[in-house]
Amino acid sequence: MRRWNGWGDEGFNLAMPEQGQDFLASRIGSGRPLADATLDSVCAKVPETRLTRPADLVSLIDTGPEARVRHARGQSLADWLAMRSGEFGVFPDGVAYPTTSEEVQTLLSWAAEQHIHLIPYGGGTSVAGHINPVDKGQPVLTVDMSRMNRLIDLDTDSQIATFGAGTPGPLVESQLRAHGYTLGHFPQSFELSTVGGWVASRSSGQQSLRYGRIEQLFAGGRVETLQGTLNLPTIPASSAGPDIREMILGSEGRIGLITEVKVRVTPLPEHESFHVVFFPDWESARTASRLLVQTRTQLSMLRLSNAVETETQLALAGHPRLIGMLERFLSLRGAGEGKCMMTFGITGSRLQTRNALKEARSICKAQNGVYTGTRLGDKWAAKRFTMPYLREALWQMGYAVDTLETATDWDNVDNLLGLIETSLRDGLKDQNENTHVFTHLSHFYSQGCSIYTTYVFRVGDSYEETLARWQTLKTSTSELIVNNRGTISHQHGVGKDHAPYLPVEKGELGMLAIRSLCSTFDPDAILNPETLVK
Amino acid sequence: MRRWNGWGDEGFNLAMPEQGQDFLASRIGSGRPLADATLDSVCAKVPETRLTRPADLVSLIDTGPEARVRHARGQSLADWLAMRSGEFGVFPDGVAYPTTSEEVQTLLSWAAEQHIHLIPYGGGTSVAGHINPVDKGQPVLTVDMSRMNRLIDLDTDSQIATFGAGTPGPLVESQLRAHGYTLGHFPQSFELSTVGGWVASRSSGQQSLRYGRIEQLFAGGRVETLQGTLNLPTIPASSAGPDIREMILGSEGRIGLITEVKVRVTPLPEHESFHVVFFPDWESARTASRLLVQTRTQLSMLRLSNAVETETQLALAGHPRLIGMLERFLSLRGAGEGKCMMTFGITGSRLQTRNALKEARSICKAQNGVYTGTRLGDKWAAKRFTMPYLREALWQMGYAVDTLETATDWDNVDNLLGLIETSLRDGLKDQNENTHVFTHLSHFYSQGCSIYTTYVFRVGDSYEETLARWQTLKTSTSELIVNNRGTISHQHGVGKDHAPYLPVEKGELGMLAIRSLCSTFDPDAILNPETLVK
Repeated sequence: MRRWNGWGDEGFNLAMPEQGQDFLASRIGSGRPLADATLDSVCAKVPETRLTRPADLVSLIDTGPEARVRHARGQSLADWLAMRSGEFGVFPDGVAYPTTSEEVQTLLSWAAEQHIHLIPYGGGTSVAGHINPVDKGQPVLTVDMSRMNRLIDLDTDSQIATFGAGTPGPLVESQLRAHGYTLGHFPQSFELSTVGGWVASRSSGQQSLRYGRIEQLFAGGRVETLQGTLNLPTIPASSAGPDIREMILGSEGRIGLITEVKVRVTPLPEHESFHVVFFPDWESARTASRLLVQTRTQLSMLRLSNAVETETQLALAGHPRLIGMLERFLSLRGAGEGKCMMTFGITGSRLQTRNALKEARSICKAQNGVYTGTRLGDKWAAKRFTMPYLREALWQMGYAVDTLETATDWDNVDNLLGLIETSLRDGLKDQNENTHVFTHLSHFYSQGCSIYTTYVFRVGDSYEETLARWQTLKTSTSELIVNNRGTISHQHGVGKDHAPYLPVEKGELGMLAIRSLCSTFDPDAILNPETLVK
Repeated sequence: MRRWNGWGDEGFNLAMPEQGQDFLASRIGSGRPLADATLDSVCAKVPETRLTRPADLVSLIDTGPEARVRHARGQSLADWLAMRSGEFGVFPDGVAYPTTSEEVQTLLSWAAEQHIHLIPYGGGTSVAGHINPVDKGQPVLTVDMSRMNRLIDLDTDSQIATFGAGTPGPLVESQLRAHGYTLGHFPQSFELSTVGGWVASRSSGQQSLRYGRIEQLFAGGRVETLQGTLNLPTIPASSAGPDIREMILGSEGRIGLITEVKVRVTPLPEHESFHVVFFPDWESARTASRLLVQTRTQLSMLRLSNAVETETQLALAGHPRLIGMLERFLSLRGAGEGKCMMTFGITGSRLQTRNALKEARSICKAQNGVYTGTRLGDKWAAKRFTMPYLREALWQMGYAVDTLETATDWDNVDNLLGLIETSLRDGLKDQNENTHVFTHLSHFYSQGCSIYTTYVFRVGDSYEETLARWQTLKTSTSELIVNNRGTISHQHGVGKDHAPYLPVEKGELGMLAIRSLCSTFDPDAILNPETLVK
């Protein structure tokens, strides 16, 4: 059963090894956990629905309290605190479960007539407030796409698969795998997030180096709007004017509800493996990662942890004896204190992967990288989707954890990374609290890369105090990112949390273009209000 | 000196070998050339300008007849017939030559105030009527960007170069080459077309398989609009809402005038070579080309001629003795009558290109391809930008030549190719005229490819008759393309000629989105009227 107040499956818990606890305590002190609200107590708070369902929609829409609780919040830290405290604020007035595009169009017509706000809901994994209802004085209906979760068509000539927009990652891959194909889109939210959500929020997966971002995978599909059905035909490439697909990508429910998604798929690879290299310092590690991508070495995945993340990962890994041996070995090879861990994946035919490995090792070696083989890479692959469960483990220990991510050009990577880490590390100093901050680079481009920073701090004595701590860190660092050539989000989208920072990034005229698009399709602003643009 | 009434440099002429003439005569009969108008006679027809230049713009704007003649038409076949007959129709009222973004903004303000139509002009190489003035009862000012032709900045860390939008292909490459870099964007119009024009019309180069289309190369820049300056910051990738760059790409002067373009560049490669393989038949050749791209073999360029194009190219190549020897050799290896020629390029490090060649040869061999080495590939590379000069040579012989191009998914390639060729081949049958038609595939994607069809027909007894022949062929085939899952253009853009077919491709709601964008930035519709959307 899915957790109603946190990440993932109730049956799965990530254990924190003892030395991991000691490590955190030494950095930011011991935590004191806050008490959790119960599902029953929250359901009791859900107000009467404001929706009056017409007869033909009764079976489609659930207005019961539990469904409304389970669809009220995503997975941002603010959402987490709301769910654990039981202080949800606004609930949707009902949850619809359409099974066809036609039913979605029916819901749209009804919403337009009644001025009901519609919120499209995929996996509910947003960490930026995309799916949270806001109180605008009108009823809110959340449209859960989970019943549209099938592989509708697979064209093996053109390598295009058509999915219902509510298909979550595991069902995307298992349905394709049955035919010998993969989409290759593996965001960390893979377990729950959906193909429609990936398109609506411009998602990027861990192996985007091979398969591309969702922008490259999204070939077309169907969007139900208040103006009618928008069909996006599949065409490999076109010079015929502005690309409508690119207006739907990142539209976050403001233009319409995506119901069918056509994606570019690939035959399952002959070979895939993940490898780990340690570098003596950040400078050499960053240079190697930049050269790997700028030389077009055929990697499928690349991730570079800075020294603190490397240290933290080794401390939290457990197995202190094995890790100790590894560290002595690395130290002898020149990668001691301050070492940085790189993980890379190679995927493809035997010939391609053999050559890619050769190229990659040669570039790393030239930067004094110490290659350690696939053992740690296999560990990364085995745990690649479990990191969100860490929040639960830390929460039980009295810690809050969140991440911030951006992307910027290579000439600005070190500068922006430094600014972000300093802002987070010092953000709670006036409260005499330390923050444990570490970063990796991932999603590499010849032009630059994404910067993904994790920060851990102790919860306060109350939920209010904890939320205030988070707001302090999130706000100041977000401002800093957009004022220093970073995007407000490389892979999490805008939602409501990032909307205040979007105008700096897009500029006045960029915002004008986006607003004009939204109001062309939704003149009365009933779709997902306050998301993307206020 | 640039030809005023045709393609390229006056000093360069492509000779048609005798057997090429015989070949065409045997296919469609001998031609009877039409008489050309002189530049003087056309200049004499240019009406008085309707522009009253304010003092500060006098030196910026040329209202003399020759400049106005030279900027009145592009390079479509209809433009060609207008230029050769001297029947231009509408001329712009003047030509501005701004040197800075600020001057462009001054021109925009003046145009808005006086309701003057502005047409941005790059290399004047449009084959779809992008830069042709139309008579809307108001003066027309063509804005020639050729004085903004410099490399403004090169960031070698992030591999981003900033160019003035009017920089033509050779100046892009020579200025980058001086620093050891290349953009790698080589459309057939490379000699004259500009980086701003590439962005405005979503251009694609011959080596897009390595370097990407202009969509992938365009990192940001500056656009002057009637609402002010739109700055597009460089960010490697972002999930922050719809991508504004993608709205400028393909905007064809309807949103604003692009003045600066930031592009992603690459260090000059260690190795580059072009190779030719012949296949016994179309089926095996098409399969090989699909597999080459779907296996992600690191090619930089791929082109596959069908049997008639292969035959035509060999006939027009001259050197009948050498070609005869080649054909006997190929025939012995199984590639006789009906053979298809594939050219592929490999570019990159020695290791990468060695491996790519190995992979490519193995895939081709499995489809019975006969590899012939680099000799014919070198010929292709040497002549890669000279094909547009062929129109001049054919014109002198009384033939008109034009091309049609589209892109579609693999499952539809053979169907659409067949429809296009049949439509063109039979299009003049009721006039008892034959059309010589041949096709190649180029610009390959895992999902599909572009289809590029050339057609040659005899000019009529008059310009009117010749234009009518072209219109018959162009109209019916364009309709057929958009009604059969093809894009109205993979690489030439929409302009005025393709605008009638765009609504079928984009759909009613796609057109609504594009129109709303245009009118947001240009509510009085003074920019490049009737281009892109009517």
